Parts: sequence; C-alpha cells; structure tokens
Amino acid sequence: MIRFESEQPVAVNVATIEELLSEIRNDKMGGWYDLPKKIDSAEVEKIKSAAEKIQLDSEYLVCVGIGGSYLGHKAVIDALGGSGETKVFYAGNSLSARELKKVFDEIGDADFSVNIISKSGTTTEPAIAFRFLKEKLKQKYDDKASERIYVTTDAARGALYGEATQEKYTRFVIPDNIGGRYSVLTPVGLLPIAAAGIDIDRLIAGAFIEHREIKEKHVSDLAAVKYACSRAKLLKDGFDVEVLASFEPSMNTFEEWWKQLFGESEGKQNQGIFPAATVYTTDLHSLGQYLQEGRRNIFETMLSFAKPPEVDFEIPELKQDLDQLNYLAGKKLSFVNEQARLATIEAHRAGGIPVFEVIAPDYSVESLGALIYFFELACALSAKLAGVNPFDQPGVEAYKTAMFHLLGKAGF
Amino acid sequence: MIRFESEQPVAVNVATIEELLSEIRNDKMGGWYDLPKKIDSAEVEKIKSAAEKIQLDSEYLVCVGIGGSYLGHKAVIDALGGSGETKVFYAGNSLSARELKKVFDEIGDADFSVNIISKSGTTTEPAIAFRFLKEKLKQKYDDKASERIYVTTDAARGALYGEATQEKYTRFVIPDNIGGRYSVLTPVGLLPIAAAGIDIDRLIAGAFIEHREIKEKHVSDLAAVKYACSRAKLLKDGFDVEVLASFEPSMNTFEEWWKQLFGESEGKQNQGIFPAATVYTTDLHSLGQYLQEGRRNIFETMLSFAKPPEVDFEIPELKQDLDQLNYLAGKKLSFVNEQARLATIEAHRAGGIPVFEVIAPDYSVESLGALIYFFELACALSAKLAGVNPFDQPGVEAYKTAMFHLLGKAGF
Repeated sequence: MIRFESEQPVAVNVATIEELLSEIRNDKMGGWYDLPKKIDSAEVEKIKSAAEKIQLDSEYLVCVGIGGSYLGHKAVIDALGGSGETKVFYAGNSLSARELKKVFDEIGDADFSVNIISKSGTTTEPAIAFRFLKEKLKQKYDDKASERIYVTTDAARGALYGEATQEKYTRFVIPDNIGGRYSVLTPVGLLPIAAAGIDIDRLIAGAFIEHREIKEKHVSDLAAVKYACSRAKLLKDGFDVEVLASFEPSMNTFEEWWKQLFGESEGKQNQGIFPAATVYTTDLHSLGQYLQEGRRNIFETMLSFAKPPEVDFEIPELKQDLDQLNYLAGKKLSFVNEQARLATIEAHRAGGIPVFEVIAPDYSVESLGALIYFFELACALSAKLAGVNPFDQPGVEAYKTAMFHLLGKAGF
Repeated sequence: MIRFESEQPVAVNVATIEELLSEIRNDKMGGWYDLPKKIDSAEVEKIKSAAEKIQLDSEYLVCVGIGGSYLGHKAVIDALGGSGETKVFYAGNSLSARELKKVFDEIGDADFSVNIISKSGTTTEPAIAFRFLKEKLKQKYDDKASERIYVTTDAARGALYGEATQEKYTRFVIPDNIGGRYSVLTPVGLLPIAAAGIDIDRLIAGAFIEHREIKEKHVSDLAAVKYACSRAKLLKDGFDVEVLASFEPSMNTFEEWWKQLFGESEGKQNQGIFPAATVYTTDLHSLGQYLQEGRRNIFETMLSFAKPPEVDFEIPELKQDLDQLNYLAGKKLSFVNEQARLATIEAHRAGGIPVFEVIAPDYSVESLGALIYFFELACALSAKLAGVNPFDQPGVEAYKTAMFHLLGKAGF
C-alpha cells in the first residue's frame, strides 16, 4: 500500500534484513509486529461500545497521557478530523498550569468523560492532571463519576490498575509486549480514535494490508525495508538530520508522532538521525531558506498522498487581475499544492538535499493505518541497522530522577 | 530585561562586535534596529483605531500572510491568548484546501474582517486565499466589503498597494528597510495583536527597554551579544543543531517564529546552525531520549520566565494515595513545572548537551516585546559573526521558480 521512492535505490542485504526482522518479531517488545492480524475482535467491540457511550453522554473526552500514550491517537484524530459529536481533548502532557486551565475553560459546564492512559499510573504529568479531572468529575457527577472514567493501563499490575479495579472504572489493557511509541493500534490509541468518530476497523484494515506485504513481497521490495536501508546509507554518508515534510498541515501531529518514534528508538549510545518536521508550503517561507542553502547534512522524507484530500476549491477568475493570479483561474487548489510539492522536490534535490518520497494511496483512514505500520516497521529496522535497541528509552529517566530529587520524593 | 546564562562565559571581542552592530544598524535592511524608540505614535493610534473597529464589528479577523507576514503576531497572540471579543484566525499560509475549508467552517455566518499582509501582493499562497475571502466578504457585505479589508503592504508600489488604493481599503505600511522576519513591531504584527485585545503599547515598551540596554550596558554585558558569541563558539566546537525549549506549551508558535528568524538568517552558503524546537515536559517523553543520549552535536537554549504565569493550581491531597502523589499535595503546579525545568537542565548538561538559559522577568506582554528584540538582535549578530547576510533569503526563490514553471506562469 505504501510506496517508497528515492533517486538512488540502495542495495538490500537480504539475509541481514531477514535476520533483523526475525529478531524484531521475536523481541519481548515486538508485540506490535504481528498485531494488525492478531487484533482481538472482542476487544475492538468493547472499545466501540465504550466509544458509543462516550459519544452519547459526553461533549468532551479528555485524554490524559504523555508521550506514546497520546501522540499516536492525536496524530490520527488531527489528520482526519473528528466526525462525531464528541470532541477529544488532551491533558496531562505537560506541567503547565496555563494548559490545564485551557482544558477546564474549554470543557466549561459541558458533559465530559476522561480516558487516562498510563502503564504505571504514577507518571507525574498525567497523574497530576487526573487528580484535578477526577475532582471535577466528582463535583459534577457525584457517585456516577466512576462511570465516566476509562482507564487504559497494565493488565494486572500498577497503581492505576489497582485504582481502576477498586473504583470499578472501565478498563482497557496496554499489552506487556508493546511499548508506548508502538501502541497506536492497541486500546491506547483505538479508544480515543473511536470516540472521535473515526472508523477503527478501517484503520486496522489499513495496517493489516501493509503488514500482509511482508509475506507477499520479496524483502528487498518492501517499502519499509527500502526506507530503512536508504536512511542507513545516508547516515553513513554524513546526513544526520532527517526532515519529515508534508503538504497537508493536518499531518503535523503525525509528524510529531514520527519524531518520537524515530528519536526515541534511534537516539541512544551517542547515535541516531536527528528527527525534525516541516509543514509546507508554510515552512518553505521559514525553514525553506535553510533547507535550500544551509548545511548539507540534511535529507528530507516527503510524506504524500497519491490522491489528494477530497475537500477542494476552484480558483476563481477576477475581472481585474490585480494580483496576477488569473493564470490559475479554474485550477483546483489541490493541483497548485501538488505542483508546489513537485517543485519543492526538484528545488531541494538541486540544492543538494536527498529527498525520499513516502506515498500513501489517498488521504483516508486506511492510509493512516498503513502509514503507522510502515513507519513502525521501518523505525525498528533502522534502529537494528544502527545496532541499538529499538524498544528501550533509558535516557528518559534522567530528568525524572533529577526532578524527583528536587521535589523531595522518597527514595530519590 | 532579558538575562542570558551559560555554564561557560565566552570572551567577547568588543571591537569586532561594535563594528558588526554598527554594520547591522546601518544596513539598508536594519530599520528594526532602532525601531523600538522610533515607532510613530500616530501610526500606533491608527492601528488601535482599526483594531477597535474590528473588535466592534467582527467576531473574526482572518490574517492572510505567510512566513514573516504571520509568524510574529501569531507567536505573541498564541503566547498570551487573545483577551478581546475578536478571534484572530489565519489563512493563506499553505496551499491546502483542507486548511482553507477549516477557516470557512470556523467563520460560518459570523461577522469577520480580513487583514492581508504581503509586500508585493502576488505571493501565491496569500493571494489565492485573499481571492476566496474577498468573494465571501462581497457575498456577505456587498459594497460594504471594502470597509472590512485591512491591507498591510508596501508604501507606494506593488499589486496589493495598487488594489488597496483603487478599492479604498484601509492601508498600513511595511517599511522598506525591515524584512518579513524582523517585522513584528511594524503594522505587520501590531494590527493583528491589537485586534486580539493585547496592549501593543506594552509590547513596544518591552522592546524599548531591551533596546535601551544597548546604550546603558557595556557591549560585553549585553545578553544578545553573549548569546550570539556563545552560539558561535559552540558551532566552532561542532555543535550544529540548536534546540529552543520552553516549559510553556503556549510558547510553541514563538519557537516557530524563532526557527524562521534564525534559519532564514543563518542558513545560507552551506552554513548555519539547524534550528529545532521543543515543548516540555511534553517532548521529554518523545525527543527527550534523543536529547539525553543521541548524537552529541546538539545544544539547547532554554527559554524561561523568572516569575511563572499567573494562572496556577494547587495539587490536592487525596485520602487514598493510590497514585503516590500525596508528597506533592499543597504544592503549586508552577512549582513542579519549575523543578522539572531545573532537573532537565541538570540532566541534559550531565548528558553532554550545553544548555543556555534565556530568562525573561515574567510571562507578560512586556517580556514578549523584550524577547522579540533580544532574539532579533542576537540573530542578526550571529549571522554577521558567521559571515553571512542576516537580511536576505535567496534560497526561498528556488521552489517558487520551479513551481511557477510547473504552473505555466508567463515568464517561467
């Protein structure tokens, strides 16, 4: 489903790639690898039921989580736009009081539910936000508050599991063998996405089609393999900054998800390609100058859609052509955007920036599902090719340890 | 007003810096240098009158512009939050039909005005959006439409100047000696900021105080000089990626403005520090791993406020300490955020990331004004130290030329 194009095809060492794919699949954190064909339909139905209840009784669903616990579903929802009656909102992904106040201002007196997403339940940011939201729920709904709390956490352990069991909150499970940044297609992502009115069956179907290609295609023809090997080759040649670019601003959060996925998987042992993101044509008028003529250690991955989004406008003709745009009259805006995309690829390549193209068939739920799986696979493989563990994040503890010490937490 | 702190103070070559500052001030594009003390009070009054009219007759002000024509004012408005009746919205900063539809969906049947900001009036993105918005204004307001169009453009030349004169739109001037990315304190930024209900006198006052320090302090004690020289030193030592970080997510657009300012000023002749931005603690759970343990070519500039934003919350105590947060009960959320900031500086320095601190006195309009001037001065000086022109952007033309060719524009 996802296509990968580059100027210079790289050689794929088939035996090595097959070995690494097998290592990934068999890793104790490799549960996402075969997930698209293993998703438990009973669990999906339970998620859909919960989402239906939320849509019926809540104007807002406040998702409380940080990092991999919120980026994936926010990426999908921002890309496609919620279509249901419930607006999904976010809290607990920073420690800013201004941000928390925005959440309360937005909710106002409206009906709302909360989905807290945390493996342990003791991560500082979401745990603090959850305290405030629980208080508000209790004030508003009294002993019915617990019916509006949805918990996505460990199957059998941890503070949040304990609380959810005791308080009889509706529970969903974060599998033990899937880490935060690979968890979009688990209840972590599926419940908020379904609550936003997006068809999660179609999302899973897209990932399934992409997953099936592992079996159907020769390993050297797999888009994710080509992408991973091409990245590794460029890094060897001194290109250590990757810019993911899209011509649809709605893909911005998806790019943020991608930055976490790759940055957290590869950025260790003083290694890794630095992940950055741009939205065009917006940023062609800001970072564009740097990309065109700055340091030549950057490569670009252009994320695009063979068929443009359905929404479109035709540029009107004006009697007086004061703005000199009549040469575009009658043209679709999507056509102009596509020419800008082609022009950018041409200009950046001419400027010495290697440009990859990652092309989804259309701007649909299925394409998003396929893109998620494509990038997860390519990312795990990239980390393996660099010789680092794609599934740990030891460096994230450093600021936490220092913070707990400053806050006077027992044991630090 | 703005303080700069780093672990290792760098030597400032006073004669060189004074020479470069003089070059900047006397550059034909150096009009922003003394702007804070030269702002025309009659023009400010005209801006305030227009903003008052907009607030009275418009639920929305749609600002149409790209790059330096929108980033600065959006940065200030997003940072401080609009306080008036009018919501400022943006169009013409991409070619996405989805984005344009969002603008129309948001406006709906509400009353609105348009502020088009473009030196020439023929930049493709804003010119297209302006065609659609003009059509909507004419449908809704007929021959009163022109009273709702505010044009910020060249004083005497160009397509938009011509149209504005012919159609009797209210006009504001983009000075000839100030480029887009240095233009926040001209009508480019001041009209939208005033329309959002933010006190532009206080914004200008903040910039004025920062500007005055050039006279009042020894050149080697100027925060902007210390920042520019420290950056140059790190680049020489192989640190070619700079991450601007803030613990207030509302500062995100300000960081985007900073990325344009520095990227477009320094990124030329195959040089420049690559500008990236993060929001904490959010991104400590995504790019945090990379920053802590990835490639050691990154330095970080922490943007903070000595006094936290006024909005605050006290963490409540719970009878059952299931989430193990009672050790924070009674503490302010701003206190926890500040400890996270100190912990991050400590952890990143320990991990081999040089960390600078840029500290504004408080989260106020004045501080924003001072930060804008501080970064403009530091940026121009940084580009000069690198031996490139801080005020041109020749690379931005490359994609435009290729695009006009693909679109069949006459002459390309």
